[in-house]
Amino acid sequence: MTNDDGIMSPGIAILAETLSSEHDVIVVAPDVERSATGHAITIRTPLWVKEVKLGRRSLGYAINGTPADCVKLGLLAISKRHIDLVVSGINRGPNLGTDILYSGTVSGALEGAIMGKPAIAISCANWNDPLYESSAEFLLEFLKAYDARSMPDMTALNINVPAVPSDEIRGWQVTRQSRRRYKDYFEERKDPFGESYYWMFGDIVEDDPGSDSDYSAIREGYVSITPITAMMNVPEYAAELRRLLEGVKR
Amino acid sequence: MTNDDGIMSPGIAILAETLSSEHDVIVVAPDVERSATGHAITIRTPLWVKEVKLGRRSLGYAINGTPADCVKLGLLAISKRHIDLVVSGINRGPNLGTDILYSGTVSGALEGAIMGKPAIAISCANWNDPLYESSAEFLLEFLKAYDARSMPDMTALNINVPAVPSDEIRGWQVTRQSRRRYKDYFEERKDPFGESYYWMFGDIVEDDPGSDSDYSAIREGYVSITPITAMMNVPEYAAELRRLLEGVKR
Repeated sequence: MTNDDGIMSPGIAILAETLSSEHDVIVVAPDVERSATGHAITIRTPLWVKEVKLGRRSLGYAINGTPADCVKLGLLAISKRHIDLVVSGINRGPNLGTDILYSGTVSGALEGAIMGKPAIAISCANWNDPLYESSAEFLLEFLKAYDARSMPDMTALNINVPAVPSDEIRGWQVTRQSRRRYKDYFEERKDPFGESYYWMFGDIVEDDPGSDSDYSAIREGYVSITPITAMMNVPEYAAELRRLLEGVKR
Repeated sequence: MTNDDGIMSPGIAILAETLSSEHDVIVVAPDVERSATGHAITIRTPLWVKEVKLGRRSLGYAINGTPADCVKLGLLAISKRHIDLVVSGINRGPNLGTDILYSGTVSGALEGAIMGKPAIAISCANWNDPLYESSAEFLLEFLKAYDARSMPDMTALNINVPAVPSDEIRGWQVTRQSRRRYKDYFEERKDPFGESYYWMFGDIVEDDPGSDSDYSAIREGYVSITPITAMMNVPEYAAELRRLLEGVKR
């Protein structure tokens, strides 16, 4: 397991405890919060591994790196056992639409997929008022029904769970990543030395209201399960591009 | 224009100078190298904008952030003009196969795509011995033949150019992102305090030798042009997942 909110965040602790009831779990997570870190990896500085303990109980391993670093180190250097499944989360807040490009949590799962492992990212879809227990319970139940070995190469599941108690979740839907994105803006301020600096803000734009979209499932109270891939091809436009460039000197 | 090697890297300077012969160019790039930064954005600290000058000549604007930050700030806060095209590069080294998930350069272009702009990432496919002039000349010529407005929403072109003089480039091919990835390993060392730390290394695995793959084009001496998308759906596996989960309680 990894995440991007850091090894001391409640989401990963609650998920690790819940999954441990039926699975052997090893946690390798960033030492501090690395939200919005995307698929960054650490190549110019080395990585330290520190076992984190609460009294005598080990919580796992903390890395001074990104979620993708944690997955690489976990699979290649830390775990001595065979790993069946990479799980990243529970993220504080949704990962819907274009969020998945910025999300360290989703990138942790995609790193697992690139490394040839079945992988799942899981997010509790409310940043202000998260409720991790029902997300964790959902994943525990889901893994009883779902054989993760069916996942194709380079593929992961991006799961978002409504932040309500388990008995208020209406069910689950297999969805598609929507085009949900942000209308960003910058607030300009002056630093004590007279220089301008900018804070980034974004308003969510949900301009892709198809019934099978990730955010419609969440809005309707369902768990959203979206298969995603690290292969970003657009075969239709590749074909069009070949037509458009016909006759152009090569 | 942006990049991930930083505003002072030769690739962006050579490309800006070359494109300026026919286009109005504005450069907004990271203040220092941000390679392998993926699609990270800066949300917990503010961003400073500094105009960078060589004598009296402005080279553009440097940001203490990632390529994706630069594109957001450039489009929303710095440029006063309409932007027709976001160009990210010239990257030092190839961006082929799974590189594009880690690459700050490609993520800069994808950020343009998410913001509704046509966008191109361009890389010189030799890290040790880059030759930026022929990459820049290729893009200048390509933009004469190619109407970037044909690019669909959420789509960018990922262009890799062989590091040889223009007259030795064999031509160009529209390709697909391959599964080219890395077999990573970690070298363990001891710090002066007796703690282990790890350096990450990776050997390239080219296990996807289809003739239309990005790396076969480069290997054969052609420019590789790959349309890529920020939409990471896998409709085939979504359909299979619905079948696999039939009968499971929702």
